[in-house]
Formats: sequence, C-alpha cells, structure tokens
Amino acid sequence: MKPFLNENFLLNTETAQKLYHEYAKKLPIIDYHCHLNPKEIYENKKYANITELWLGRGTTGDHYKWRLMRAFGIEEKYITGNATSWERFAKWAEVIPNAIGNPLFHWTMLELQRFFNIYEVLNPSNAHTIYEKCNLMLQSDDFTPRRLMERSNVELVCTTDDPVDTLEYHLKLKKEYDKIKVLPTFRPDKVIYIEKEGYLDYLKKLSDVSGIRISDLTSLEQALVNRINYFHEVGCRISDHSLEVVMFEDYTEDEIRTILSRRITGYNLSDLEVAKYKAYIMVFLGKEYAKRNWAMQLHMAAFRNVNSKRFLELGPDTGFDVINTNVNIHNLQRLLDKLEQQDSLPKTILYSLNPTDLDLLGTLMGSFQDGKIPGKLQLGSAWWFNDHIDGMILQMKTLANVGLLSKFVGMLTDSRSFLSYPRHEYFRRILCNIIGDWVEQGLYPNNETLLKKIVEDICYYNAKTYFGL
Amino acid sequence: MKPFLNENFLLNTETAQKLYHEYAKKLPIIDYHCHLNPKEIYENKKYANITELWLGRGTTGDHYKWRLMRAFGIEEKYITGNATSWERFAKWAEVIPNAIGNPLFHWTMLELQRFFNIYEVLNPSNAHTIYEKCNLMLQSDDFTPRRLMERSNVELVCTTDDPVDTLEYHLKLKKEYDKIKVLPTFRPDKVIYIEKEGYLDYLKKLSDVSGIRISDLTSLEQALVNRINYFHEVGCRISDHSLEVVMFEDYTEDEIRTILSRRITGYNLSDLEVAKYKAYIMVFLGKEYAKRNWAMQLHMAAFRNVNSKRFLELGPDTGFDVINTNVNIHNLQRLLDKLEQQDSLPKTILYSLNPTDLDLLGTLMGSFQDGKIPGKLQLGSAWWFNDHIDGMILQMKTLANVGLLSKFVGMLTDSRSFLSYPRHEYFRRILCNIIGDWVEQGLYPNNETLLKKIVEDICYYNAKTYFGL
Amino acid sequence: MKPFLNENFLLNTETAQKLYHEYAKKLPIIDYHCHLNPKEIYENKKYANITELWLGRGTTGDHYKWRLMRAFGIEEKYITGNATSWERFAKWAEVIPNAIGNPLFHWTMLELQRFFNIYEVLNPSNAHTIYEKCNLMLQSDDFTPRRLMERSNVELVCTTDDPVDTLEYHLKLKKEYDKIKVLPTFRPDKVIYIEKEGYLDYLKKLSDVSGIRISDLTSLEQALVNRINYFHEVGCRISDHSLEVVMFEDYTEDEIRTILSRRITGYNLSDLEVAKYKAYIMVFLGKEYAKRNWAMQLHMAAFRNVNSKRFLELGPDTGFDVINTNVNIHNLQRLLDKLEQQDSLPKTILYSLNPTDLDLLGTLMGSFQDGKIPGKLQLGSAWWFNDHIDGMILQMKTLANVGLLSKFVGMLTDSRSFLSYPRHEYFRRILCNIIGDWVEQGLYPNNETLLKKIVEDICYYNAKTYFGL
Repeated sequence: MKPFLNENFLLNTETAQKLYHEYAKKLPIIDYHCHLNPKEIYENKKYANITELWLGRGTTGDHYKWRLMRAFGIEEKYITGNATSWERFAKWAEVIPNAIGNPLFHWTMLELQRFFNIYEVLNPSNAHTIYEKCNLMLQSDDFTPRRLMERSNVELVCTTDDPVDTLEYHLKLKKEYDKIKVLPTFRPDKVIYIEKEGYLDYLKKLSDVSGIRISDLTSLEQALVNRINYFHEVGCRISDHSLEVVMFEDYTEDEIRTILSRRITGYNLSDLEVAKYKAYIMVFLGKEYAKRNWAMQLHMAAFRNVNSKRFLELGPDTGFDVINTNVNIHNLQRLLDKLEQQDSLPKTILYSLNPTDLDLLGTLMGSFQDGKIPGKLQLGSAWWFNDHIDGMILQMKTLANVGLLSKFVGMLTDSRSFLSYPRHEYFRRILCNIIGDWVEQGLYPNNETLLKKIVEDICYYNAKTYFGL
Repeated sequence: MKPFLNENFLLNTETAQKLYHEYAKKLPIIDYHCHLNPKEIYENKKYANITELWLGRGTTGDHYKWRLMRAFGIEEKYITGNATSWERFAKWAEVIPNAIGNPLFHWTMLELQRFFNIYEVLNPSNAHTIYEKCNLMLQSDDFTPRRLMERSNVELVCTTDDPVDTLEYHLKLKKEYDKIKVLPTFRPDKVIYIEKEGYLDYLKKLSDVSGIRISDLTSLEQALVNRINYFHEVGCRISDHSLEVVMFEDYTEDEIRTILSRRITGYNLSDLEVAKYKAYIMVFLGKEYAKRNWAMQLHMAAFRNVNSKRFLELGPDTGFDVINTNVNIHNLQRLLDKLEQQDSLPKTILYSLNPTDLDLLGTLMGSFQDGKIPGKLQLGSAWWFNDHIDGMILQMKTLANVGLLSKFVGMLTDSRSFLSYPRHEYFRRILCNIIGDWVEQGLYPNNETLLKKIVEDICYYNAKTYFGL
Repeated sequence: MKPFLNENFLLNTETAQKLYHEYAKKLPIIDYHCHLNPKEIYENKKYANITELWLGRGTTGDHYKWRLMRAFGIEEKYITGNATSWERFAKWAEVIPNAIGNPLFHWTMLELQRFFNIYEVLNPSNAHTIYEKCNLMLQSDDFTPRRLMERSNVELVCTTDDPVDTLEYHLKLKKEYDKIKVLPTFRPDKVIYIEKEGYLDYLKKLSDVSGIRISDLTSLEQALVNRINYFHEVGCRISDHSLEVVMFEDYTEDEIRTILSRRITGYNLSDLEVAKYKAYIMVFLGKEYAKRNWAMQLHMAAFRNVNSKRFLELGPDTGFDVINTNVNIHNLQRLLDKLEQQDSLPKTILYSLNPTDLDLLGTLMGSFQDGKIPGKLQLGSAWWFNDHIDGMILQMKTLANVGLLSKFVGMLTDSRSFLSYPRHEYFRRILCNIIGDWVEQGLYPNNETLLKKIVEDICYYNAKTYFGL
C-alpha cells in the first residue's frame, strides 16, 4: 500500500517518479487561463480567514465546493448564507472525508500540504485546530495573493477580461510588480450574445470606452479593433469565448448590417439571424486574432443557470451549471473552415465540457493543422467538471491517440483562487504517470533525453512557445 | 494468477478484500427496484426445473440470456419455443463457456455457487449432471421464492406496479409474511403515454379501480391521487417512469384540458400536444410525490421493440430493445426546473440506458441538490445493458468525480428472477475494489472507520435512510 | 520495466504471452477489408524507396502519417509536395520520437522490426542509415507486394471496388497467382449518393459496363444485379457502404420511380426525396446480398473533406476527415428492421467512426441476431481514428459486455499499404492481453482448450466461417 498522498502521490512507477521529481516539479507555471482578479493581485491584501480563501462569497466563491456541500445535505446558510466563517469551514470539514474519489478531496489536501504544511486529513474532529492554524498563518506576509503565486513558482498568469475593461490593474502591475507577469485575455462574450437582454447597454459601454459611437456594423468593428489593439498593447495575446452552443449560418455582409441595425432599433431577431450574426462576428474576430498571432480559446458545451429558482436567489456562477449536449461539430467545422479559407485561422484551442466530444474535437483539429505552427490547433486541457484524474487521463490519451500529445500546451487552473496552483501539480503528476506507464510497459523507449523533453515541453515550454508571451 | 471466481472474486487488493468480507458481505439487501411478481412470492411455489427459473417463458423469461443465445446462433425453438426444458438448458450450457467477458457468465456461475453449491463451470459436458442436480435441489423447501430471498439476506423488495393494480398480493404478504417486506412501486407509464393506442382503455380501467369517472383533467388528477394514496397506504414510497424520450413543452392548464378532451373525444394529437401533456402530467405527479416524500425514478433512453417481425411473433420484453440516443438534457432540465420553481421537486433518481449520458446527468443532478436531503438527486446504478463490471465502475467513478459517491443509494436488481441477488454481491465487490484501489494507491487515507462507513452506507444504510421504507 | 517493444509487447501476463505465442501468432491473416490496389499486387513491382511505401503520394499516400506531420509543424512540401524522398523520410523521422502514445509510433516500429529487421527507434540521428538500409533491402525479391503479403502469412485479402470496375486484375490474379486469394468487395457508394454531382455520369458508366441502359428504376436495378452477379462470379462475398449520415424515410416504389426519373431529367431533389431513395436502394441491395449470403459492411459516421481549402488543393483522402456526430440510431434501426421484416437482412457488420456509438450499435445488433448464423450481426473492429490500443480495447470490451466477443470476426487493416499487416499482430496481442487479464484476475477459468478456441476463432476461424470465402 502506498502511503496516503505522499511525495509519490499519483506516481505509480519508478519512471513516473523520476520524470516528476527530476523534471516536471521544478518548472515554473504558465497559467494561461484563469479567473483571478487583477485588482486583488494589485492590492495584495491579506485574508481574514481560510473560509474567505476557500469558500468565498458571491461570484468570487468556489462553486465547486458549494455543489458538494449541497449534495451532502448542508443548508444554504452555511454555503452562501450568513453563517460565520468558522461555521462554514466546519461544514466543509464535514464534507471532506465523504468526498472520496472527488478531485476536491485531493485539491483540499494538497492545498493544506503545500501552503500550510498541514498533513492531516481535514475532518470534523481536527477542523477547529486546522482552522485556527491556517488563520494564524494567513496573517503572515507569506500568504498574500502575490506571495501565494510566487511560492507556487508562477511565472505568468492570464486573467479573463471584458473588452470594456480598462485593464487599470494590469497596467499598474506591469509598472510596479515584476516578479510575475499578469496579462489580460480578451473575452468578448457580450458582443457575441446579441440575443441577450443587455446587448444594447453593452454596446453603449463599448462605445464609451473605445470613444467610437457604435451605430452600425462598421463602427462596431472599429470599436472592437480599438479594444483588441488596446489589449494587445497591454500584453494580451489570447482571446477566450464561451460558446454554450456553437451556431453558424452562412451570411452576407449586407445581411449582418441589416440584422445589427434591426437589433439596434429594437426588433427581436430570429434564431437564424442570431446565428448569422454570431458566425460573422466570430469570423471577424478570428481574423483580427490571426493578424496579431493571438490564440483563440473556444470553451464549448456549458449549459448555465439551469436552476431558475436558485439563479434568482444567488445569481450566476454559484454552482448551477451543467455539461451540455455535444458540440455541434458541423457548425464548429464551418467556423474553422471559413477562417481557413481566408487564410485567417488563428491558433485555436478547443475545449468541450462534454467529454464525449474529445475524439471528435481531436480529429477535427487535426484537419486544420497547417504544417507551420506546431500544434496550432490544440485540444484543451480537461475542463471544469472534467478536471479530475479520469478526465485528465482521457483528454491526454485521446490527444495521444489521434494527434500529438508531445505538442500539448498543458494545464491551466481556470480558477478564481490563489490557492489553486496545486492543480498544475496534479496535472503534472498524472502526465508523468501516464508516460511512466507507457515506458514501464515497453510501449515507449526508456530514453531519458526524449522523455525529459516531452515532459518539460508539456509542463512548460510548449505553452511558452505557443503563446509567445 | 487468482483462482477462478473464488471468495476474492473481483477483490484485487487486501483493502478491497477486507472491506468486502468484514463489512459489505454481511449487510442485508434492500432491492428498491425490481420486477418480481408479488403473486409468485405469495404463492411460494416450487420450481419444476432450473430452466423454468433461468430461462423462463413469455414475459417472465430472462431476455438477457435469450439475446446471447440468439447471438450464438441458437434456434428460437430452444429460446422461446417448444423445446423441452432439458434441451433448452443444454443450449444455454453451450453458450456459457463462450460468454467470456459477459456479465451473464459471472451471474450464472455465482447463482450456481451461491444457491446450488456448484463450483464447476457450466458447459456441454457437465450440463446434464448439473441440470439434474439443480432440479433435485429445487424440490427442497430451500428453493421456494421466499426461501431464495431469505437465503440471500433480502430485507425488502420494491416491485413495479401499475396504478390500476389492486396490490392484492402485497396486502396478503403484509398480513401473512413478515420476514421480508414486499412493497409496491407506482409506475404510471400508461397515463403518460397519451399517444399510445391503449390510452383510453387504460383511463377506463383507472376509472373503475379508483371509482372516479375520468372525463376531464380534474377527474384524471383525482383518480391519480386516489391511486397514489392507495399505494401509499400499502407502503409504496417510490414511483418509477420509463421515459424513452424525455419530452417537455411549456403549457397552460387550459391547454392541457383541451388536449385531454380532444384525446378523449377521439382526435389525434400533434407531437407538440403530446409533449405538453406529458410535461404537465409529470409535473403534476412530481408534486404529488414530493408532498408524500416519495422518491421518483426516471428510467430514460431505452428504445424498445426495434425488431418488428420479432415483436409481432413474441411481444414485448423478449430481447429486442436497444440503448437509445442521448437523453434530451434540455427537456429533462426543464422538468426538474419546473418542479423546483414550485418547491415540489421530489427525491429523484436519474437513470439513462446510454452510458455517454452519465457525466451530463451527474452534473445536472448536482444543480438540483437542495442542501436538505443528502444526495436528494441520485445518479442511478448502472442499468440493464450497463450492468457489467465496466458499466458499474463507470457509473461509480462518474458519480465520485462530479458528486458524492458516499451518498449513493447503491444497487438494485431490476430483475424478474429470484436468483438474481448475486448481482448485489457483484456490485458490492466492485465497489469495495474501487475503494480498495484508491486506498492502496494512496488516493484516500487507510482509515478504517471512514472506509467502513462509506462502504456500509452505499451497500445498505443510504438506501434505508433515503427511501425511508 | 518491460523492454521496449520486445516479443512480449502488449502482453502483460503469462497467460497473455502463452495465448499469443502458442496460438494467435501462428494463424494466417484473413484481411477481409482493405484498400490495396489489385493492380499493384498483379504487377508486383519493387519499390524505389521506403518513402514511397511509407508516405506515398496522392490518393495512395498514408494520410494517417500526413496528419501527424502537419500537427508537428512540417511544411506541406515535405508531406505531399515535391521534396525529395530522402527529405520527406527525414521529416517523418523527426515526428516519430514525438509521437508518444500514438499508434503510428508502434506501427512504424513494428514495420521496421518485422519487415526490415531493424530494432532501433527511428529518429533524426539514425534516419539516414535506416533510410539507406531499407532502400537496399527493398531491391531484394523479398519486398515485392506479393512477398510482403506472403511473409505476413496472409491467406486472403478483400479489396474495395466500385461496381463499374472490370475486376481485370482480380481475374488475372485468380489465374496466375494462387498463394493468396485476392477477392473484390462490392462498394456501390456512387449509386447511393444520388444527391452528388457525378451521379448521372456514374449511371452512364454503370450502363456501359453492365450493357443495360439505365433509364428508370427497373433498369437501374437490373444493372446493379448484373454487377452483383459479376462480382459474385469473381469471388466477391462482401459489400461495403460508406454512410456518413444514415438516412431513412418510408417510401413507396412509385415514389422512388418518380424520384429517380426527376433526377435523371435534371431536377434537384429535396432532402426527403434523397432519404427515400437511399432507404429504397439500401433495402434493394440488402436483399440482393442476403440472397447470395453476402456480408454487408456499413461504415458510418465519417465526416469527410472538412477543410475546403486543402480539399481544393489536394483532393480527397489526404488527411482532412473527421469523426462525425453519432449515428442516427433510429434510421439505422429502420433500415435493419425493414430488411428483417422481409426476411432479407444479410449478415451485417456495423462500424461507427464515433466511439460513443459502440454501446448503441452493440445492443442494436443484438436485437437482429437471428439464431441461425452465429454472430450474424457484427460490431466492426475499431476503425480508422479508433484503431489504437484504447480503441481496440473499448470495441472488444463493449462487444463482450453486451454480446458475444467469442463470435467476433476480428481484425482487418483498412489499409492501402502492403506493410500494414503488423496491425493484425497489434490486434492479436491486445486481444490476448485482454483475455489474459480476465484469466489472471480469476474472471474466466484457466481452461486451455476453451481459451485456445476463443483466441483462434477471433483471430482466424470466425472470419473464415462467417464470410465463407
């Protein structure tokens, strides 16, 4: 029996252990997609207690944990309600020993080990001691957002930002803090979702921030280019899109002009019109990204806010999202194909929340590799509900089976928490274990030079090269 | 090499063996969903021969076995036809050694071991000896339906019953037999399938049994409530629905009144009308279940009677059903959401016959956990075509990955046979092996108190608490 | 650690090693589906160099390898362009060490070992030596197409042929070469795809070759029967269909007459008309196959030529195909059911490129097993993008779980290359390893007679019996 969560956690062979300890472990972290708040990094405030960091509140909370608490039968008062920090922590401590097989069990333990040097398994009987011990440590200077990142060997993070964002804190950080690069990511969802209620208000904001009065397609495009240029100046090289459903319909530019004008003048759009608009805008943006050598991330197949009652009570991102039905592979193909036809397909990362899409995406991306940029099209790392041992293995093995695992840009946290870097460790251990297994089974030669390069590339160098950050 | 199917069958680590032998094995069985015939339990007749028990005839037959026999190239005469019992048994014995990797191979062996003390592998050369040996034993009092259940340590079974059923045998058993509880389950499929030919005849039966003349929506609802109350009195706490396709359309009560009235007066309904009606009735029933704290089971994505020729020859449930395309997750979400909006979502168990739905259902259910009832929404145990080692592992690991395995209500047989309880053993062994693996690999602490509780809960106590039977 | 790719490659237990070395290894190969060119077999020319054999050009090239090269960032010039043979080989040698986990890595190594006696791992530093060594050997008489097949212990291959093909080379081979049977397969895709541009031209060719002027449905059917009979005479017993999307709509014969007449006279058909026509023709052909005891292969869910730019540059089959969305199981059911209703369902092999279809197809086929022909309906071997270790395991375990693995007709290459027979070895090793695992874990008895029969049947005898070639 292997000891619980020791230094060889997830590393079941000597080869895996060697690859991890000698190569993977030491490399810096490029967290190219997360939801950290740059303001928090800039202000660098200490945390009042571990509950604040772990469970949080409102939209900065950890809805992964909240979901488990609800499944365990814990009242909402202790989850998003007004219970005290200690009470909330105590409830989470009740869940933990019952979260057998869930990644949150491992993440929680890893965070306690790596940041707080606590090796016990959190449970109701030691919860109070651990709570106090953590809170005490949180008062030291080693537990500010910046120090947590530095201690995790983070080299660079890319936050997720709206085109109307002023990027004030990114600019300030650039000037005043040089240990870790904090770069923005361009996420123009609100421009894409023309059918949503807030669309016109959003155009107003976009007009204001860009100084370009948006009254038609030309001015909308100008405003978007203006913001893309601004983001580019601040160091952005990546965009991100949440496509719950991938829509695509053929269009003419005239049609899009009319559709936008109808929307602006208050008409409701048909589904067909919405699809045409989305297709057009995605192609427009894709071209702009390609021009600037940005990478485009497509996060697909999330189905959000499925519990209306809770949505009204708690708002979005509070733990009521679901894996959606499969990505419409034909619409996605049409989008990529349209861009490719115009020699304007940017580097693209395809993520689906639905794990049964992996083989399809893996083969689709293979059909758009251009022989110029290695791994130009990427199969995104196991995302959100898939970010567990089985999910990571499935994503990496699928990529290996139908493409080149060795060109994979690797892990990201997708997280709102400064404690979540052990997820990179989790990923690296799983990667080394997969490769170690192959070597030990005689499926790949035990050639240290090759293995070192493959592991280091996936953990660090591929991302560095690919994103050019 | 481990010996074939010995006491450590499926238990590959010491931890797994300990968990199974010390904890899981001893617990009684709560078989909360099966298709046993209460009349057979009541009458408690001996079986003429093992063929009757194993292969059966007509709708009480074992269509799992029949399918394998057909795939093996055995003539229908030996499957559902008029061959002698011995001839039919001999043909099944031919299949068995060829069923490598199939769960029926294991189930057959386990049934021979546990009930008949036979440890040989059934095959053509020993078939006659085994046939005679079994038949001899079947004449002893230890092989009546009741004794088979008692010997399997069954505490409670829930049969599957139509709302018009008088529950005569449940009542008699309640009075006269106290060793095992035999409770009904409310399965109102015939009220849901308004588009089917027999619908109006069925309303007639429902009128007769409830004493309420069904002429409109109000009286239909009254009749249903009448039957729900009756089932409740007899001890029913669970409902069950077969939703081959999950339909849902928004409706008004007025629309439903009109739709039902149109159906009663002989009009054909449009697909839209059918969907509205089904949505309404499911919501209506869900509320009634919630009021009484019943659990609602949704069995989704079966595609039945796909071979018309055989259906005409042999009728339903004779081995011509198929896994259907994925559950319409949006319609299912709308059903759950509608009930939740009205604070009327009952405890619900989601089963899909399509294994690629598991991740979707696992995350959907997580969005309706209410923080009051632990594991209120459940991911149903691997069902029917998925009821094999890989399928059970997938269901349990999916649940662990996206929810709380520790709150799982565990196994059921879904069977028509009194010999099928070793499927609970099969499940328990697989469960203990999964958990044993995690512990041995250092993924979960080797804490006996915690492990005992988790294993015992999933095998027995969770079901006991959840169903409140 | 097991040595890299030694004689026990993929065989992780003693039982697996025994089953492979004593039984599986020795059996001849029946390659019942491939894309070899019978002219090449007939002409039996030597190869100028290993690049010609491995990478090829145009439609005889190996688009599997081309895709990996593009993903690695290699310019098209070295893939399908005018770089020298050595340059192209050198580029492929660069990819190989980076193809960790990909089946092409193993296939490449196996081909070097088995045919060239080279045990080094191809890489840039040994590429030139290996290139020259291989090229030298290619000049010996042991490296002609026929000798490569004979050395691989091939007994029979079925090529893939258009109904208008004269089968000239099959006839010549029949007369002049008796070491290996080379039989045609009837693949009438161009008759099915009525909506495609070349349809009318194709009917013209079919008229010419059959001597029957096709002017209506009756003459089309006559021409098809004429060709089926011709193929039958030449030894064909298998048909093959590429159904990217399975379409089926109910029809009357009159409707089909009208649809065909409309098409012939230049009208465009609606989607509904196309679906009716396809349903009709598939049923018509199925009946003809059944009459002659042919097997019908359905290759489903490929999505071809998704990159329009590359399609215009390079044409079809150059590496721009994708796994399609799931097979429409309802349409497939209607096709099988229609044939079954008329007692005309031929032996049928169902392949889907989408691995998430396996459970559905496995249960669908189980509903059409007729109890006469063992394994009449077959779940096709892991196909194309699924032809890797995980994919083969998934296909075989799915079949074992929901049907009879022991009746499986086993592997095929689906290849255009005379070097691809080690894929049968790959398959046999994986098969023996799966079965070995079951035995070593005590899940199946260690009965050598039974195991030998199961392994030998799947590797060779089942195909021999099933196809009756």
